[in-house]
Amino acid sequence: MLKFNEMEKIASVRGALHLRTQIEKTADSILADGFDTLFFLGIGGTWASALQVESYMKGRSALPIAVENAAEYITTGNLRLTNRSVVVFSSVTGSTQEIVQAVKKAKAVGARVFGFIDKADAPAVQLCDWCISYPGNEQLKFFMLANYLMYKNGEFPEYDAYNIEMETYLPEGLAEIEKSVDDWAAEYARSKYLQHKANPDLPHYFVGAGTQWGATYSYAMCYWEEQLWIRTKSITAGEFFHGMLEIIEAETPVTLFIGEDAQRPLCERVKNFLPKVCRNYLVIDSKDYALPGIRDEFRGSIAHLILRAVNNRVDVHMEKEFCHPMEIRRYYRQFDY
Amino acid sequence: MLKFNEMEKIASVRGALHLRTQIEKTADSILADGFDTLFFLGIGGTWASALQVESYMKGRSALPIAVENAAEYITTGNLRLTNRSVVVFSSVTGSTQEIVQAVKKAKAVGARVFGFIDKADAPAVQLCDWCISYPGNEQLKFFMLANYLMYKNGEFPEYDAYNIEMETYLPEGLAEIEKSVDDWAAEYARSKYLQHKANPDLPHYFVGAGTQWGATYSYAMCYWEEQLWIRTKSITAGEFFHGMLEIIEAETPVTLFIGEDAQRPLCERVKNFLPKVCRNYLVIDSKDYALPGIRDEFRGSIAHLILRAVNNRVDVHMEKEFCHPMEIRRYYRQFDY
Repeated sequence: MLKFNEMEKIASVRGALHLRTQIEKTADSILADGFDTLFFLGIGGTWASALQVESYMKGRSALPIAVENAAEYITTGNLRLTNRSVVVFSSVTGSTQEIVQAVKKAKAVGARVFGFIDKADAPAVQLCDWCISYPGNEQLKFFMLANYLMYKNGEFPEYDAYNIEMETYLPEGLAEIEKSVDDWAAEYARSKYLQHKANPDLPHYFVGAGTQWGATYSYAMCYWEEQLWIRTKSITAGEFFHGMLEIIEAETPVTLFIGEDAQRPLCERVKNFLPKVCRNYLVIDSKDYALPGIRDEFRGSIAHLILRAVNNRVDVHMEKEFCHPMEIRRYYRQFDY
Repeated sequence: MLKFNEMEKIASVRGALHLRTQIEKTADSILADGFDTLFFLGIGGTWASALQVESYMKGRSALPIAVENAAEYITTGNLRLTNRSVVVFSSVTGSTQEIVQAVKKAKAVGARVFGFIDKADAPAVQLCDWCISYPGNEQLKFFMLANYLMYKNGEFPEYDAYNIEMETYLPEGLAEIEKSVDDWAAEYARSKYLQHKANPDLPHYFVGAGTQWGATYSYAMCYWEEQLWIRTKSITAGEFFHGMLEIIEAETPVTLFIGEDAQRPLCERVKNFLPKVCRNYLVIDSKDYALPGIRDEFRGSIAHLILRAVNNRVDVHMEKEFCHPMEIRRYYRQFDY
């Protein structure tokens, strides 16, 4: 398999799940002091991950959770981010300028800051009251924090059973999914390249909802736009019916992601609609992928990781078919702007 | 001027501003009982308006304000929407299914509901604890409510002076702007039609921020996509630099809206970037349009109305040039889905 190191993949997820003790300890410290609001802060892909965890907690937890976009916070500000607030963020480099500025601003207000920063020696580490450094797995880290906060708030009684299943079965399960979809992903990327070549300006539409919405937004923007230079538009399944549906035609390329959280019915409505007006759509439904050992009622919290596993293989083959190394950027960090 | 009844335009805005007494009375009743959170609820264009007022209040008010998307609320729910909460929504027809379901769900929880419903005889009126019926001007209604809530919360000391200027000068001022841009808008629509004809699948990109972001999102989706069947993508000015910038090329059509709120610098950054990589962009900056009688520091709260006045004329001419009546829909409410 192209660009696939199974052992590394498994070790990466396993290592992230093993952060649980550190995350719990940090959360205990956060909870001991209390907070008026806990803000997940981000920009671009990390903001998208914040939206995912917010959606995850909204229907399950009475805890005061909110999302802040770093660029908006450093300009508009937020009077409800106070010296009783906690800010949680994730960053690979720890150097994204909006994040650094936003964290400094939050610190100046007196808020406490918990950073997941992949690079342990990033300058932003010094800004944090708590910091955990481990590469990748951002969504998993956020959801692990959410799970423990809900557990401590009496909203997640199955917490122990849940963790046993995740820690035992998730790392290998996700790797197995990647392997199982590889042939299909290679074929998909080939056909997408031919379509793209015939009409490079036609955007590809991505639809998602709930805990998958942030991932849908960032997949369209941070992967296909930023890394593959393919035009996209992303929309939530709920909003799809309030405008965007009108520009779907028979040949319009649409990918619909369906997860297993409470917003699944919104995606199913799009799934029922699409075949009536379009013949060029693709449905990627997490339910189609087995995760042996993990019970159905726990899958809603990790369906986005299943879809990510599928997309991992799509990306590898897209990169090859489009002859476009995903590392290159036209503009980002290439010159001053 | 095509499709322009100046007296009606002025009377419409003036009438909306005259709702102030009713809005203040309702807000007094809301404040008398207090609330844990006041939610602006919407879907599609009305959700977009909710995002605008949330951005407006976030940096100025410590009041607990939040936004809910109706489709998301009826599926995921929100444990922080309680019997101490207030839900504010706006609807033209009062019949949008997600809104009706969401309001019923909020009522079942025990929340109090304040609706702006254009049609006084809509069934949804009966669901409301308070209802004000007056056509159009949704954003103005939300902002008027926000202004009074902030005034009562000690966050808007200039409230009286502000209202005098708005009520004296805003209705005619907006009409004057529409007149002043009409020739330009006609020319713009003609050239946009020729561009579109040459490449109908190339999306038009819209960038906005702050109190203008919701309007940017809904202008792209509810006007160009839904009513004109033109492909679009909208993005916030802050997020633009975290992915979408990479698919801007010399001939990519981009419209950048610049308002006068705290997020103006984010838009200015896009304005500085665009000419380096693109020659097909348009900047619509509210600062370029005079509103005699209204002082500069009040304009941030109504810059989106200036941009809306400009877009009103663009829409009229787009409809004509594209020979596409804006009332028609391919799919929306045309069949069951």
